[in-house]
Amino acid sequence: MIGPSGFAVKSVTRADAASVAELAKHGVATIHEAMGRVGLLDTYMRPIYPGAKACGTAVTILAHPGDNWMLHVAAEMLERGDVAVLGTSSNNTDGMFGELLATSFRARGALGLVTDAGCRDVAELRDMGFPVWSKAIHAKGTVKATIGSVNTPIMCAGALVHPGDVVVADDDGVVIVPKLQAARVAAAAAARDAKEAGTRKRLAAGELGLDVYGMRDSLAKAGLKYFEDEAALLRERSK
Amino acid sequence: MIGPSGFAVKSVTRADAASVAELAKHGVATIHEAMGRVGLLDTYMRPIYPGAKACGTAVTILAHPGDNWMLHVAAEMLERGDVAVLGTSSNNTDGMFGELLATSFRARGALGLVTDAGCRDVAELRDMGFPVWSKAIHAKGTVKATIGSVNTPIMCAGALVHPGDVVVADDDGVVIVPKLQAARVAAAAAARDAKEAGTRKRLAAGELGLDVYGMRDSLAKAGLKYFEDEAALLRERSK
Amino acid sequence: MIGPSGFAVKSVTRADAASVAELAKHGVATIHEAMGRVGLLDTYMRPIYPGAKACGTAVTILAHPGDNWMLHVAAEMLERGDVAVLGTSSNNTDGMFGELLATSFRARGALGLVTDAGCRDVAELRDMGFPVWSKAIHAKGTVKATIGSVNTPIMCAGALVHPGDVVVADDDGVVIVPKLQAARVAAAAAARDAKEAGTRKRLAAGELGLDVYGMRDSLAKAGLKYFEDEAALLRERSK
Amino acid sequence: MIGPSGFAVKSVTRADAASVAELAKHGVATIHEAMGRVGLLDTYMRPIYPGAKACGTAVTILAHPGDNWMLHVAAEMLERGDVAVLGTSSNNTDGMFGELLATSFRARGALGLVTDAGCRDVAELRDMGFPVWSKAIHAKGTVKATIGSVNTPIMCAGALVHPGDVVVADDDGVVIVPKLQAARVAAAAAARDAKEAGTRKRLAAGELGLDVYGMRDSLAKAGLKYFEDEAALLRERSK
Amino acid sequence: MIGPSGFAVKSVTRADAASVAELAKHGVATIHEAMGRVGLLDTYMRPIYPGAKACGTAVTILAHPGDNWMLHVAAEMLERGDVAVLGTSSNNTDGMFGELLATSFRARGALGLVTDAGCRDVAELRDMGFPVWSKAIHAKGTVKATIGSVNTPIMCAGALVHPGDVVVADDDGVVIVPKLQAARVAAAAAARDAKEAGTRKRLAAGELGLDVYGMRDSLAKAGLKYFEDEAALLRERSK
Amino acid sequence: MIGPSGFAVKSVTRADAASVAELAKHGVATIHEAMGRVGLLDTYMRPIYPGAKACGTAVTILAHPGDNWMLHVAAEMLERGDVAVLGTSSNNTDGMFGELLATSFRARGALGLVTDAGCRDVAELRDMGFPVWSKAIHAKGTVKATIGSVNTPIMCAGALVHPGDVVVADDDGVVIVPKLQAARVAAAAAARDAKEAGTRKRLAAGELGLDVYGMRDSLAKAGLKYFEDEAALLRERSK
Repeated sequence: MIGPSGFAVKSVTRADAASVAELAKHGVATIHEAMGRVGLLDTYMRPIYPGAKACGTAVTILAHPGDNWMLHVAAEMLERGDVAVLGTSSNNTDGMFGELLATSFRARGALGLVTDAGCRDVAELRDMGFPVWSKAIHAKGTVKATIGSVNTPIMCAGALVHPGDVVVADDDGVVIVPKLQAARVAAAAAARDAKEAGTRKRLAAGELGLDVYGMRDSLAKAGLKYFEDEAALLRERSK
Repeated sequence: MIGPSGFAVKSVTRADAASVAELAKHGVATIHEAMGRVGLLDTYMRPIYPGAKACGTAVTILAHPGDNWMLHVAAEMLERGDVAVLGTSSNNTDGMFGELLATSFRARGALGLVTDAGCRDVAELRDMGFPVWSKAIHAKGTVKATIGSVNTPIMCAGALVHPGDVVVADDDGVVIVPKLQAARVAAAAAARDAKEAGTRKRLAAGELGLDVYGMRDSLAKAGLKYFEDEAALLRERSK
Repeated sequence: MIGPSGFAVKSVTRADAASVAELAKHGVATIHEAMGRVGLLDTYMRPIYPGAKACGTAVTILAHPGDNWMLHVAAEMLERGDVAVLGTSSNNTDGMFGELLATSFRARGALGLVTDAGCRDVAELRDMGFPVWSKAIHAKGTVKATIGSVNTPIMCAGALVHPGDVVVADDDGVVIVPKLQAARVAAAAAARDAKEAGTRKRLAAGELGLDVYGMRDSLAKAGLKYFEDEAALLRERSK
Repeated sequence: MIGPSGFAVKSVTRADAASVAELAKHGVATIHEAMGRVGLLDTYMRPIYPGAKACGTAVTILAHPGDNWMLHVAAEMLERGDVAVLGTSSNNTDGMFGELLATSFRARGALGLVTDAGCRDVAELRDMGFPVWSKAIHAKGTVKATIGSVNTPIMCAGALVHPGDVVVADDDGVVIVPKLQAARVAAAAAARDAKEAGTRKRLAAGELGLDVYGMRDSLAKAGLKYFEDEAALLRERSK
Repeated sequence: MIGPSGFAVKSVTRADAASVAELAKHGVATIHEAMGRVGLLDTYMRPIYPGAKACGTAVTILAHPGDNWMLHVAAEMLERGDVAVLGTSSNNTDGMFGELLATSFRARGALGLVTDAGCRDVAELRDMGFPVWSKAIHAKGTVKATIGSVNTPIMCAGALVHPGDVVVADDDGVVIVPKLQAARVAAAAAARDAKEAGTRKRLAAGELGLDVYGMRDSLAKAGLKYFEDEAALLRERSK
Repeated sequence: MIGPSGFAVKSVTRADAASVAELAKHGVATIHEAMGRVGLLDTYMRPIYPGAKACGTAVTILAHPGDNWMLHVAAEMLERGDVAVLGTSSNNTDGMFGELLATSFRARGALGLVTDAGCRDVAELRDMGFPVWSKAIHAKGTVKATIGSVNTPIMCAGALVHPGDVVVADDDGVVIVPKLQAARVAAAAAARDAKEAGTRKRLAAGELGLDVYGMRDSLAKAGLKYFEDEAALLRERSK
């Protein structure tokens, strides 16, 4: 159902608030692991300033290259706790979003934007503390000539995003948690972070991961050979 | 007249000081819009540290890959309020510019550098507060073997730059204002910023861009259809 | 001898401590120049936060795409003052390294990591002050399924690295100093920095590099022609 | 349901044969237009030799970087008329597919491969006439260490592909037609090609698209101004 | 005067026919050298099939991303012997041009297209023998919503192109010869090719470029040292 | 010993002729596997025309960006059966090599060139049948101003190349076989090709790789689960 332009859906089912609140406590890497190592956007999707962080429910936008019209349509659908997510019909890095739209989005309750295009006014956005993850930073202006869609499934940076899915974004990138899996993933992330706390202590005390995780046997089975020094390796390899 | 190497022009006509002073008050995005959405350098041209900002008149440099000789020739032509702009005869990311040249440029009155090549000593340049926009950051050293030109028209990151043009650069990128248009663009940028102040207030108060800009009719004419919820959209699409 | 997987060397000869201590006083650009303009990693190798700096002896790691198993093997070989350097058998940007491994590496005495793959948990690493230079930042998790090697020669971002070589890394990138050349390069870097101090003073006082470095004659021999202004250049070119 | 590894589905519903046969008569560009300008894989997905063409039903493969194990699992699921489509869990360009696997795939009835990774043995594949669309050509070998999935939904070059969808690929790239839309899109593509035949004749006879498509009024409304020559434009712009 | 959209110039001054005819006899590399090593488009501008070649006068087009409207406007301005050259207001790889437009362009007398965007229907274009140089090949369709300009100066792949300039394109890329320099460059290219014929014979006979071009002295002055074998080099370097 | 410029070594030890002759019978992929999956140049290194193939001993060249002087120095060192291999001191795509140099190289007995820079005159090189593998195709001319080295170890596209090593290149890319390993690798490649002939027959007859290679048990141990159809998978996953 990803698809043709021309549709704006006013009301969508969003992930439940409790799951979103729990997911907000964890990082993108942890949540991605807790989902089974899926759900990440591509590596080019980066925050416009260090320390940016957002966790909310997706309002999705399909836009066309060089055209930011649908961002204004989307503003009306934004509710408190949403994160806008914009996909494009073809590759584009124009500065579709800036400080005025951020002012509007914030007034509507939005927590941030993830955009598969460019962003501008980044100094002002940093001062406002309005986080954006984008493909590029560029001042290039856009037109309002071609309609797209709002709140239909979109592709964004290689991931499929449905309206209402949970969007978690930080310095490590962006992960999408499907709304139906939100509760399960939130619980798994919490469990994972709890477990890592114990591991961290052991590693900080100087224990090796080889022992903490019990890897020595499997490494040996996989064929890893240890040598005391470089001379020993050379002797082995010249046999 | 873009062209062969070997020419150094000592004195060039610069944009008038009043226009430069006015342009310095506005951001790259605003000025680019005020020019009619032209004049930007490519998106890969980025500041070496956040918050960098410069507005001045261009001293142009044509350099060859891996060779920074002409930067020393250009130092002599720099006057108070200039921004050096370097184009290359072919793609190159070597660190053609660093802290020593920045010391020299600053002593001559220059406000910054825009270079279609690499930059190095970025920690020192950040400490000095000498802003540079570059294609890359790399420690790679250069030779002084082949002559280019100074103060002839150059191509830099996809834009044509004449000596004396106004260079405005900030976190959003770099825009070139031709010297003959400087006064007109400065006035248009000021008008644009003034107008946006009013819009900002309305958006911050929760008004929608759809209403502030009066977009509802044109969206309807363009064929945008609204649906109350996802179920309504599915019913429509399965007809 | 770069090569097949399956070898872990426990003890390697490291560059002498005095040379490493001297190299730590100089920047990557200076050291690269002092070596004769060689030894740099490619321009895509960037610090995960501004101001990162490390100088230490290399423990080398050969890893496979999407697999961070060997980082745990390497932890056991790390000694105080080491910098881990990871090369991959093919291009990969997965987040092979994060806060838990950094905790372990630091406990073992390591000063940082240079990795030809991705890094994650960058907010936590910034807070810890554990510097990493990487090809990408991405939350993508990895498996532990295929063995590589530790402390054998590797390729990393276009450079050959032997275990025990000196790794110097800062905002300008990363340079590798072969262990046998460490003393000579350290001395040359010190000499170069001393000489630049004098040059810096003269340039700061407004002297031109043309005069400080005595370039005017060679520029003239190379054919550079000076013109008083643009009109003079036009007259010459229309002859 | 895109997702975790470890699942191999033996039998999937495929698009109906009549629709596939009709789609095979049309090019990727026509089909993409007939779908409403959606369904394309990213521009980096290119045929390994000019003139490659394939149209069939998708057997989908999720593989991990540097690991081609699941291609062997997929071979068993291939039926006459299938096109294998491989997505990866992270970016990778290793040569996961070559002449031996092509021999096996062809023996099973497959018509080609679309892979979001690398391909090798391209001279042999060209001689065999076995078409492959890939992200890269590289001889890099792979391991068989980590399991993925076969015949579950995958992401490939920015598109969502379900098993049984129609894959059409030619010199212009690759388009995915969801199996439920196959009949409708086939009819629309046929209609489009029929209509274009008439247009082609008129254009070949020297008629202008401006008149064939009736664009003159809308261009005027959009504000396009005509000038007799460059002097007229200059007069207008200097007013 | 590069600039805002909305202008279509019907009649432009073209380079003289004799110069164009002479330039058509020479390759892009030769002409680029004859101009003083300037005028080339960026390296990403590639022919859509091997052996493509075109030499003609430029009709320039400024288009917006994802919008091919102006190509239809340009068709009316094309005359026998023209090559259309398209620049975009921001980076875009959509398939703005295909077989129908090529049919129209050919009917108007055009010899080819150089486009800083995508091209599609490449199999058909290859069969027609209509050469195109493009940034990408992609089936992605475009809209007709925003006006640009025709026959005003444009930027294309990093070069400035004026209407009427000579466009020469072959397997090595694309070079733009300003119309006022066409005669001079044509003569220089002819002279260069004549001279190279003699050089080619000497090299084919086994003479070395070192002697044909007389480089031995300058190499020695530049400091090149010869060694009989690797052992001699090692002795020198270990001194 | 990779390093500073200024050295030209006249005579180097080359891999033995019998090994080179044997390696010439096998493809790059086979040889790379036979070496233990090492030795490949990066994926961007591509032949300038399809079907290019070369196998010979390396004469190595270190050149600087935009400068092809050392190619002339290297011509004198070329012997019958050599393949020239060029590395650069920093990234560059200029057309350092063309038809005149190819004429000279061929007259000296060289079989081809592998260059980590650009190539030009590709139509002429294709007609001559002189194969080149390069990073780019571009007409951009170069100067002869800065000396590099000939027949010293170089880095080329991420690989270390010593003079006299075997260079094997075809449509799949380029692999470097260290001269001391040439005999062993040649034998291993021959054995591998012989073994694959049997496998090919079985696969062509419709046998599955799963059975030919005996993978079913290891897949089961790794956790792969089979499902009869999509409904069965859905039942499992909704448990």
